[in-house]
This record gives sequence, C-alpha cells and structure tokens, in this order.
Amino acid sequence: MRQTRGVRKIHVIGIGAGDPDQLTLQAVRALRSTDVFFILEKGEVKADLTGLRRDMLDAHVPEGTYRVVEARDPERDRSAGGSAYSPAVGDWRSARADIYERLISEELGEEQTGAFLVWGDPSLYDSTLGILEEVLERGAVAFEYDVVPGISSVSALVARHRTGLNRVARPVQITTGRRLAEGFPEGVDDVVVMLDAHQTFRQYAQEDVDIYWGAYIGTPDEILVSGPIAEAAPRIERLRAEARERKGWIMDTYLLRRHPRD
Amino acid sequence: MRQTRGVRKIHVIGIGAGDPDQLTLQAVRALRSTDVFFILEKGEVKADLTGLRRDMLDAHVPEGTYRVVEARDPERDRSAGGSAYSPAVGDWRSARADIYERLISEELGEEQTGAFLVWGDPSLYDSTLGILEEVLERGAVAFEYDVVPGISSVSALVARHRTGLNRVARPVQITTGRRLAEGFPEGVDDVVVMLDAHQTFRQYAQEDVDIYWGAYIGTPDEILVSGPIAEAAPRIERLRAEARERKGWIMDTYLLRRHPRD
Ligand SMILES: C[S@@+](CC[C@H](N)C(=O)[O-])C[C@H]1O[C@@H](n2cnc3c(N)ncnc32)[C@H](O)[C@@H]1O
Ligand SMILES: C[S@@+](CC[C@H](N)C(=O)[O-])C[C@H]1O[C@@H](n2cnc3c(N)ncnc32)[C@H](O)[C@@H]1O
Repeated sequence: MRQTRGVRKIHVIGIGAGDPDQLTLQAVRALRSTDVFFILEKGEVKADLTGLRRDMLDAHVPEGTYRVVEARDPERDRSAGGSAYSPAVGDWRSARADIYERLISEELGEEQTGAFLVWGDPSLYDSTLGILEEVLERGAVAFEYDVVPGISSVSALVARHRTGLNRVARPVQITTGRRLAEGFPEGVDDVVVMLDAHQTFRQYAQEDVDIYWGAYIGTPDEILVSGPIAEAAPRIERLRAEARERKGWIMDTYLLRRHPRD
Repeated sequence: MRQTRGVRKIHVIGIGAGDPDQLTLQAVRALRSTDVFFILEKGEVKADLTGLRRDMLDAHVPEGTYRVVEARDPERDRSAGGSAYSPAVGDWRSARADIYERLISEELGEEQTGAFLVWGDPSLYDSTLGILEEVLERGAVAFEYDVVPGISSVSALVARHRTGLNRVARPVQITTGRRLAEGFPEGVDDVVVMLDAHQTFRQYAQEDVDIYWGAYIGTPDEILVSGPIAEAAPRIERLRAEARERKGWIMDTYLLRRHPRD
C-alpha cells in the first residue's frame, strides 16, 4: 500500500473459510500491522464466527498492540421474498456504509491502520469492497485500502474433496442457490453453489450429476458428502437438518458436476 | 490425513500464484512435514518458477530435513492446433502418470511423505490431482494423499484490482482463452479467463466491457491494467509484448465485466 502521511489506511483481509491455518503469511503480516480491527456482529447465529476472528488475533498478534471495535451489522430486510438478496439490498448497503464511515472517521486516528476481517476470500459474495468504495465516493472521510486475498470456501471445499473445480479445458461457474433455482446454468457442467438456504440441488436429483457438498468446512464441525446426487441428496438433507438443529446455523457450499452430454 | 503405517503419504500443496507470502500456515506446516519434494521442470521458460519453489523451501523448511527430486515434465504435443489443450492431452497425461508413479515408488520410502508443489490453487487448471488418481487406479503403488488449498491467480488478480469476482447476487464463470474465442459465455457477465495465449479479449474490444488484467501477479514483475476494454486493450497488448520479449515467457489472467443488458 502506498504510504501517504496523515491518511488513514485500511486492510481488507481474507481470513479463510473456517480453518485458522488457512490464513496466509501475508494476512498474518497485515494483522500485525493493524491498530484497530472492526468486527461487525451479525446476530447470535454468527457469534461462533466472531469468536474465531478473536481467536486468530490472540494467536497471531501480540496483546496490547491493537484495539477491537465491534459494531452491530444492520439486518437485511428479507421480508421481500425471503431470498438472500432482496430489493432492499441497496438500502442495506447504504446503512452499512453509514456504519463503516462512522467507524473509520471516529475510531481510527489519522496515522492509523484499520482492518476488516473478511470470511473466506473478499472477492466472493462479500460486500466489504463495495461498501468501502461507497464510503470513499461520499467523500466525508479519506483513506487508502488494500486487499489481502484469502482461501475461499470454494477452494476449501474442493481441496477437502480432493477434486478440481473445473475439468480439463472446461469452464466452471460460481453462482447462488437463488440463481440455480432458475435452472442449471447454460454452457457449463461444473457449477459451485453458495448462499443456498433451500437445498436447491434437490431440483437436480433425477439428473446425471455428481455432488460434492460441504458444511462448516475447515471447522471442527465439518461435514462432507459426495457421490451421485440421487444417492447423496437424501443423506445431505438429513445431515444438514441435524447439524442445523444442533448448532442453530449452517454454512454450506457444493459443486455440481454434470456428466457432459457431448 | 489418516496416518496408516507403511503407506506412503503425499501432500498436494497449493503455493499461491507468485507471492511467497501467499503461502498459508497450513501449507508451511505441510512443507515442514515433507521428506521428499517432487519438482517437475517444464523447460527453460519456467525456470523462474522452479526457482521460486526452491526459495520457498529455503525460507520455510530447515535445511537437511528434506530432499528435492527434479524430473523433466514431458512436453505436450501442441502440433494439433497449437491450443492449450490438444487431443494429445490424454497421451500427455498418461506419460505424466508414468513419471509420477516412478517418482513415488522409487524416490519415496514406505514411511515417508512426499509433496507436489502446485502453482496457485490445485483446483484450477492443474492436472496433479487427476494424475495422482490415475496412478492410484493403476494399482502399482499405494499411497494416501491430501490437498492443501492455495491462493489462485484468480483471487490474487482481483485482490490487486480491489474488486470482487462476482457482482451482488450474480454468477461468475472461470474459463480458458480457447473457450472465450468461441463466444462470450452465456448467462454470465463476469468472466475470468486463464490460459489465453492469444489475447482473446481483443475480440470484445468494441463491446461495453471493463477488463481487469494482470501479468506475473504477485511477483516483482507484476503488471496491472484495468478500464473500459476499448481503451485498455491496446495498452495491454503493448505491455504484454514488451514483457514477454524481456522475460521470455508470460502468465496473465483477466476478468471481463460486461455491463448487464438488463
Ligand atoms: C456471504 S458468502 C461469503 C463467502 C466467502 N467470502 C468465501 O470466500 O467463502 C457466504 C457463503 O459462503 C459459503 N461458506 C462460507 N464459509 C463456509 C464454510 N466454512 N463451509 C461451507 N460453506 C461456507 C456458504 O455457501 C455461505 O452461504
Ligand atoms: C495451468 S494454469 C494454473 C492455474 C493455477 N492453478 C492457479 O490457481 O492460478 C496457468 C494459468 O494460470 C494463470 N496464472 C497463474 N499464475 C499467474 C500469475 N502469477 N499471474 C497471472 N496469471 C497467472 C494464467 O492464466 C496461466 O495461463
């Protein structure tokens, strides 16, 4: 990052998707150069994830060299359909931008470095970069920022299943459960699905598709299931329901691999 | 990895796409638990990359605790069209399987751990996992293996450009230059292109597309260009030709972001 005097600095740090050992050396260095960590609480169900972030700081950053500022993340309005991204997403982003702006201007000194710890890789289905750009555009507070890539839940999923994302010379698509519900994406036979609250894979249980599924990947609760979807789907449904009941929340990702028609 | 007595063990370790600091803590641990590293030489142009692997070992693994075995990677037959994956790809894979089988059976003791250091993330356009499965299927040598995910050139690219892979609630596709030459993929407006020897992005220079391009990402030679493709494409062409001339080889990746029609 360019070091300009008197300008606040921010790291957006990908911390991996659950396994604290999936931090990179670059991420550890960035953690150690941070004065103030901003941790946004997303309600009780994610308290475990906040705990994991705090454990990472304890493990890698000398005590007394940093401060943690927690803020409450505004709830998204899911009333408009209950899907992961409702039309209210715009309002929600600007409500978050208000909070980020306040955190940066009030909690970070002008010569200091702040950090947002982002789950997985900041490039996948995460709003931090978009919100920081919005704060910058508003112009009320100036800062520089850089991005430290992290191991995404997608990379972690396929590593645990010891398979590739793409097959030789073929493409792969990463999409959401909501999009998958509209149909199997065109032009690809390998599809990774995130943000799926409805087990949309069941829609393809009669097709010639293999599934590689994982929940809580990289954590002590990790569950992995793979195989032809007709056999695997009922197993996943059962395990998923049990785990969700037990822990109160679930995060899962899967790869669908369709047997090519050609 | 399950520890079974008398069975050879192998780590497939993603080492990131150029920046040695993008090793994960898990990768460092795996390096340190390895007795024999297999490094496959891919000809002079990649000598720099082999050098980087050796530097990583020097930096993270105590001297005298490991051995490095180098082998020559068989050349792929590119005569059938000059594209990244010719029909000869099957033969090439089995020639590689011969080499891997020999390396594992002859260079690795029965209680030892070997490792293949894979560029970026082992899940993206890399043949190591497929080849190990082929060796296992042949049944001539038994081993267990695990996969350590790495930061891919895709994650590194977008981190350097401080942008996301997908836009909010939208899908992203990862594909090859060869596929892109057949047309802009259907159903997506965000496309990452790898393995493109022909600057196929030029095909879209008249369209409403932004490009985020990077070469030698994470290395001291890194070059980044982004912007509307009509303006950026000529610049990329020039910088790419110069760099390729200077270094003798180039590795580049890019994201095309089409302005949605809806
Ligand atoms: C808001 S997105 C964030 C993704 C994150 N940036 C990443 O790179 O993995 C949340 C989704 O990521 C996936 N996910 C994240 N962590 C996971 C884990 N440990 N196990 C399984 N899925 C996970 C789930 O699909 C979840 O719905
Ligand atoms: C055989 S694939 C291997 C990809 C690797 N497994 C990964 O995760 O990045 C090689 C392609 O990866 C991309 N690539 C790898 N390293 C790169 C780097 N440092 N800068 C730009 N592109 C890179 C290029 O598109 C190249 O053609």
